[in-house]
Amino acid sequence: MEEKKIPYKIYLDEKEIPTKWYNVRADMKNKPAPLLNPATLEPMKAEELYPVFCEELVAQELNDTDAYFDIPEEIQNFYKMYRPSPLIRAYFLEKALDTPAKIYYKFEGNNTSGSHKLNSAIAQAYYAKKQGLKGVTTETGAGQWGTALSMACSYFGLDCKVYMVKVSYEQKPFRREVMRTYGASVTPSPSTSTAVGRKILEEHPGTTGSLGCAISEAVEAATTTEGYRYVLGSVLNQVLLHQSVIGLEAKAAMDKFGIKPDVIIGCAGGGSNLGGLISPFMGEKLRGEADYRIIAVEPASCPSLTRGKFAYDFCDTGMVCPLAKMYTLGSGFIPSANHAGGLRYHGMSSTLSQLYDDGLMEATSVEQTSVFAAAEQFARVEGILPAPESSHAIRVAIDEALKCKETGEEKTILFGLTGTGYFDMVAYQKYNDGEMSDYVPTDEDLEKGFAGLPKVDK
Amino acid sequence: MEEKKIPYKIYLDEKEIPTKWYNVRADMKNKPAPLLNPATLEPMKAEELYPVFCEELVAQELNDTDAYFDIPEEIQNFYKMYRPSPLIRAYFLEKALDTPAKIYYKFEGNNTSGSHKLNSAIAQAYYAKKQGLKGVTTETGAGQWGTALSMACSYFGLDCKVYMVKVSYEQKPFRREVMRTYGASVTPSPSTSTAVGRKILEEHPGTTGSLGCAISEAVEAATTTEGYRYVLGSVLNQVLLHQSVIGLEAKAAMDKFGIKPDVIIGCAGGGSNLGGLISPFMGEKLRGEADYRIIAVEPASCPSLTRGKFAYDFCDTGMVCPLAKMYTLGSGFIPSANHAGGLRYHGMSSTLSQLYDDGLMEATSVEQTSVFAAAEQFARVEGILPAPESSHAIRVAIDEALKCKETGEEKTILFGLTGTGYFDMVAYQKYNDGEMSDYVPTDEDLEKGFAGLPKVDK
Repeated sequence: MEEKKIPYKIYLDEKEIPTKWYNVRADMKNKPAPLLNPATLEPMKAEELYPVFCEELVAQELNDTDAYFDIPEEIQNFYKMYRPSPLIRAYFLEKALDTPAKIYYKFEGNNTSGSHKLNSAIAQAYYAKKQGLKGVTTETGAGQWGTALSMACSYFGLDCKVYMVKVSYEQKPFRREVMRTYGASVTPSPSTSTAVGRKILEEHPGTTGSLGCAISEAVEAATTTEGYRYVLGSVLNQVLLHQSVIGLEAKAAMDKFGIKPDVIIGCAGGGSNLGGLISPFMGEKLRGEADYRIIAVEPASCPSLTRGKFAYDFCDTGMVCPLAKMYTLGSGFIPSANHAGGLRYHGMSSTLSQLYDDGLMEATSVEQTSVFAAAEQFARVEGILPAPESSHAIRVAIDEALKCKETGEEKTILFGLTGTGYFDMVAYQKYNDGEMSDYVPTDEDLEKGFAGLPKVDK
Repeated sequence: MEEKKIPYKIYLDEKEIPTKWYNVRADMKNKPAPLLNPATLEPMKAEELYPVFCEELVAQELNDTDAYFDIPEEIQNFYKMYRPSPLIRAYFLEKALDTPAKIYYKFEGNNTSGSHKLNSAIAQAYYAKKQGLKGVTTETGAGQWGTALSMACSYFGLDCKVYMVKVSYEQKPFRREVMRTYGASVTPSPSTSTAVGRKILEEHPGTTGSLGCAISEAVEAATTTEGYRYVLGSVLNQVLLHQSVIGLEAKAAMDKFGIKPDVIIGCAGGGSNLGGLISPFMGEKLRGEADYRIIAVEPASCPSLTRGKFAYDFCDTGMVCPLAKMYTLGSGFIPSANHAGGLRYHGMSSTLSQLYDDGLMEATSVEQTSVFAAAEQFARVEGILPAPESSHAIRVAIDEALKCKETGEEKTILFGLTGTGYFDMVAYQKYNDGEMSDYVPTDEDLEKGFAGLPKVDK
């Protein structure tokens, strides 16, 4: 019985933490479409991006040919604070499901930011520091990214200004407080501190904000303040590059024990976790060295891959950002109150969108009550209270394992457990009280979002 | 440079998780005083304890001669869910303090209960299940113990009734919700569901409760409900026995790298963490094999070791429990609102009290604003947001490291980081807003508590 030897948790040795990030774009035949300048509709040049992003991050963003980037030593050192993260064999869950499937998950929640977001936050803060900047600005929805960035900035002594979607700012005071504990300033968005914020407030008095608004404010704050740049926790190619550390570690841990996953599952909002988790596996698939079934899981309430259009769109509501080609619901699409705040983005990483369009991965959507049912089942047997975002992946992993139970197949399932749900107990409470409802946008709802797509003939 | 080889995190192999608990009482010359029957003032016999506690736990409670107890296989399996816990070299903190001291901490917070409490919860739930019980009752203050017990009961399919101090029930709805997610029922205490609760409510209308009241209610609920027993998360000998897994792992990890601590520091409320952490080290000290400086850290607002009396006292406010000989402030002592809810108990483990009285360990008390200053400093460099309780140990570890900086001594410091502070953000907020105050009881305050001590001539 080979699998008897596999421990509950596989920890790589500290020396085995990756020293290079892997850039999946290098192995893609169809490269992700370039960012476009919204005024000229021409591909953005590096110099045009410098006012917004740090120079080295721009270089990473635009490079779709180099397969590996060295991880700077200071980032490697910081990674040692909370990495390697464990690859966990879900023995308890397998037993509870009575499935022949072998389930593994890569758990990224064992750090105070509570998620994988720290992997890219520390990289972005490092390059900002290296460029001699004073600070960075960003937006946060659920708060995981803002928390991660606060921790990273605190480490490098950088100022950190976070625009937090107002509804989250009010509903998640504790997330806000963690960011303050790490020295960040947190502003509810939309705010009167930016022109775009004032405009939005004028047009929509009493609005509780959206991720798209908060991005617009953070970009404005960065570009109008000396010594600041904007950083983003998902969607961008650079973020997927940094997050490849998840997949590289997962693959190294599996390789050690000769395990090969049949199915790889991740939740997908902007794509940072899924993109990072699948990168090295997708690389093998692209190079024809191996085949994997890869599934992106998104909320039925914000179904960019499963029901969106593959088109150029704005990344933000204020339309100050470059255009990105992606599966999108339109930058004007307002997702309903779904508790997985981290999955409420109208678009999807250009890289993942291209891979999906090329048929290299699948996508599925799930409704939130079934997601919380899976979360609770998982928490009770595996002992980790998962974030609502991560629980989308759990739902589909359980469903796949139950299919194996029916067919008797001993498939190996790998999914990404991106984080913990300690700051999401309001959502759990609603679920426990039977007050959680599902919402699926109608085709008409979607048409309204699509109507706002910019006219780009590319 | 030998220490260069020491990784940031030392993880034992899964096979190295202890398979026996260590009972420090076996090596004590002066044994902890026995529990007394409050009516007869005679030592409690096993049979007298059976209505309250599970039989195997009573056996562990009363056994002060056997040095080792086998950990049952099912508990060993459960331990694999979240153990071994890492022993972390605080390189980042050492650098920030610019100290020649080498600082290590054993981190017990990487599980959903957020603390070390799970180590004993799973053991107590196991023995309850083994005895064929339907369920268990308990009290919880800060909520860590209640959460841990909920997780453990959920694992064994046991019913779990938690009496939660009313002020915490109201101020920490999210803790409550985690317990519900694990299927526990949570009742604010004092409640009208018990006779003792009704009596307390009658005498003190509008009271927000105390740990002592909640214990009385939980004991009554257990002894008056068929198939239930009471379980406790600290103070008792059996709990220290289970928690010895912390110290055994810490010592095994240090031994692997030839590290010998000079100073061992732990926060102390009822003593579960400190007792567990120091057990194997204290064993060596008691047997004359090694010497360690051991420091218990308690809040200045509830200073049972540093200002209490070593006397027989009630363990609960309702005076339904046996008498224990311990350092105590009197069961009527009402600690002020200190945010470290887990350290607000009037007494201290009989075992630790005896060791302290015998001069085998030291004790010190710290004020809460200085504790939160240490917590924030630690969080920013080590990346873990600590629980207020744990931060008492951090405060003293930092102070000891700073003394080393002055003297140039390269001492090795080990402290216990019992848990995370994700559910304590109200306290962090008060600290961040400059609204946190310190409180030290006057001698008169203490005299009131001492006046209520039972007259026992032992």
